[in-house]
Amino acid sequence: MTGTARLSLNLITVDHWSLGEAVERCAAAGIELVAPWRHQYEDAAAAAQLISAAGLRVSSLCRGGFFTAPGADEDNRRAVEEAAALGAPVLVLVCGPPVDRDLAAARATIAAGIERLLPYAAEHGVRLGIEPLHPMMVGERSAIVTLGEALDIAERIGHPGVGVVIDVYHTFWDASLPEQIARAAGRIVGYHVNDWLRETSHTLLERGMMGDGIIDLHGFSAMIEAAGYDGPIEVEILNPAIWDLPRAELMRLTVERFERCVL
Amino acid sequence: MTGTARLSLNLITVDHWSLGEAVERCAAAGIELVAPWRHQYEDAAAAAQLISAAGLRVSSLCRGGFFTAPGADEDNRRAVEEAAALGAPVLVLVCGPPVDRDLAAARATIAAGIERLLPYAAEHGVRLGIEPLHPMMVGERSAIVTLGEALDIAERIGHPGVGVVIDVYHTFWDASLPEQIARAAGRIVGYHVNDWLRETSHTLLERGMMGDGIIDLHGFSAMIEAAGYDGPIEVEILNPAIWDLPRAELMRLTVERFERCVL
Repeated sequence: MTGTARLSLNLITVDHWSLGEAVERCAAAGIELVAPWRHQYEDAAAAAQLISAAGLRVSSLCRGGFFTAPGADEDNRRAVEEAAALGAPVLVLVCGPPVDRDLAAARATIAAGIERLLPYAAEHGVRLGIEPLHPMMVGERSAIVTLGEALDIAERIGHPGVGVVIDVYHTFWDASLPEQIARAAGRIVGYHVNDWLRETSHTLLERGMMGDGIIDLHGFSAMIEAAGYDGPIEVEILNPAIWDLPRAELMRLTVERFERCVL
Repeated sequence: MTGTARLSLNLITVDHWSLGEAVERCAAAGIELVAPWRHQYEDAAAAAQLISAAGLRVSSLCRGGFFTAPGADEDNRRAVEEAAALGAPVLVLVCGPPVDRDLAAARATIAAGIERLLPYAAEHGVRLGIEPLHPMMVGERSAIVTLGEALDIAERIGHPGVGVVIDVYHTFWDASLPEQIARAAGRIVGYHVNDWLRETSHTLLERGMMGDGIIDLHGFSAMIEAAGYDGPIEVEILNPAIWDLPRAELMRLTVERFERCVL
């Protein structure tokens, strides 16, 4: 894949739109890929139909994971089934927070949960993508907070069905990033772009549009490319200021910034 | 130093009190150490007089650093002078954010700035304590976001006048923490405690009281002790909910939680 054909709109970026409108506006803007979240459809088969009817494909499904929560195994098998129904090659894993004060135990629980899920995912032709989240999300969302930790798990399992999803926002601060991205070669199953706004006071909802922040996106993309990843690149932005943009303007800006700041 | 005699109140925890009141209430509560911030006094010599008149000592001065900003060298020399005037054995360094998108360049600027400041600090009998901040503070406050990076700088300089300040809040999420704290042996010049509240939406002002969050403080303190550090332990909490507590209650709770959760 090359150029703008790699752009996938992660649909959390337009979470207040219906799936139908999102798909329609992507098609109109020349975006060929989308990444839905599970709360954005009721029936995965119907969503798949809607997406393919517009001529689009699915780059990934967000999200499975939360391995530290009760009922995680069952919910994750459902997520795998939905990914398969959507034709999503990857299920993104947000791994879940620690139950108590024991981060090491949470990390072991997560690794074991991924290992248990793997055969079912492989049967369904869905790869599992461990996404390390920013360390500020450790208490509520993920005990896996560095690319190094995600790779530790993926390497130990050592199966092509388990890889990593690298989001610039969650990982750019890490001084060991060049080494870790190089180490990830062959295991990268997703690449997410957006930006870190210099002034950030909210831990969840202040992700920026590419080019508005302090991440060296060209440099980041060069490392990802050097590691051999040439698949979809998802634009994923959680920010009310982005949600409030006029809809056509948001689509135009997404494509323009992707071409100017990411590629 | 042992037991509660190690407790130092970092005065940002009571930033809305006058220095006089803070010192008085610490003395009354049996707290023998304080760590003032530079904005909390006009004249360092007068502040020193006020603190020692109450029978207290200063554990550290917050803060020098911001090496990436214009005029940093001059301001840092003033901070060293003030630390010396206060009898603070340590000047805490918050190293400053990147100027643009080049984090590696910012880290090099910071290391060079520390090296330039060191002779002046050593002359004044003040040790420099590099405090890695949480990665969520990278855009506004510090390009040094892991203990590993802080130690890289301290080791390269290799002078007893440069060490690290370890704050549980900024570092607890790091899977390599046990190795890094062991590596820090002999270079730890400060230890800060508080807690990470599970639900955290604000990047600056939601630090918790010890025991209210998800940090394994006993485990953390054991690692610090095993690394040979037996100096002051500063309680440092930035949180309007803590600031709003009745004043006597805040002092009582600080001592009680320190004894129960930290030691």
